Amino acid sequence: MLKVEHIGIAVKDLANAVPLFERLLNTNCYKTEEVLSERVKTAFFQKGDTKIELLESIEADGVIARFIEKKGEGIHHIALEVEDIKKEMLRLEKAGFIILNTEPKLGADNKLVCFLHPKSTNGVLIELCQSIQ
Amino acid sequence: MLKVEHIGIAVKDLANAVPLFERLLNTNCYKTEEVLSERVKTAFFQKGDTKIELLESIEADGVIARFIEKKGEGIHHIALEVEDIKKEMLRLEKAGFIILNTEPKLGADNKLVCFLHPKSTNGVLIELCQSIQ
Repeated sequence: MLKVEHIGIAVKDLANAVPLFERLLNTNCYKTEEVLSERVKTAFFQKGDTKIELLESIEADGVIARFIEKKGEGIHHIALEVEDIKKEMLRLEKAGFIILNTEPKLGADNKLVCFLHPKSTNGVLIELCQSIQ
Repeated sequence: MLKVEHIGIAVKDLANAVPLFERLLNTNCYKTEEVLSERVKTAFFQKGDTKIELLESIEADGVIARFIEKKGEGIHHIALEVEDIKKEMLRLEKAGFIILNTEPKLGADNKLVCFLHPKSTNGVLIELCQSIQ
């Protein structure tokens, strides 16, 4: 497990949130991307070694829309970069964590990703991600 | 604004959460600290350039206890490291953000800190922090 790769933040509307985070972080959004598998539009900012990823749902019943409905806008997940995602999934499952995918899936930013259930991680939704070479 | 310095996570009980995060992050907690001004006990982990800070309330009515009562355990804030906290507070106030302290205060890990109201930051509690030389 290498580093905190990014922090995912659920927002209602990227059109408002992107300029707000540009003012907050004092840096420009360097990329936007639609991730169809997750039904989200994303916008990325770099701060040091870690990225901030804003997430807007592209459907009314998407996972981010439901998160906002339940908890309001705010921090959605922490993504931890790993070298070998399958190996980490196995290690964490053995250590008692609940892995939400049986296989890694394609996420934003050209990465293989999987999620750990917050029930097993003190309420924190954890994403594991591995860069695709 | 230099980097994401740490991510703060509210937990009920460090005695359970510290070994859990040691297994999750595959690294040992390197420091615990009581921060009387915030009425919390904290435990730190390093991942790359960014720290994970677990926070347990030391009083029933503390800010972390009330957060957990309302929202459950989970991610509480993102801390952004700055070079000059007073200058950043001024810049952000002018940019329309709500600063929760009039002056920086002493936080965990030998830092001057202040907080931005989540109402002005898409629901994200933001801490600014500056290392004390």
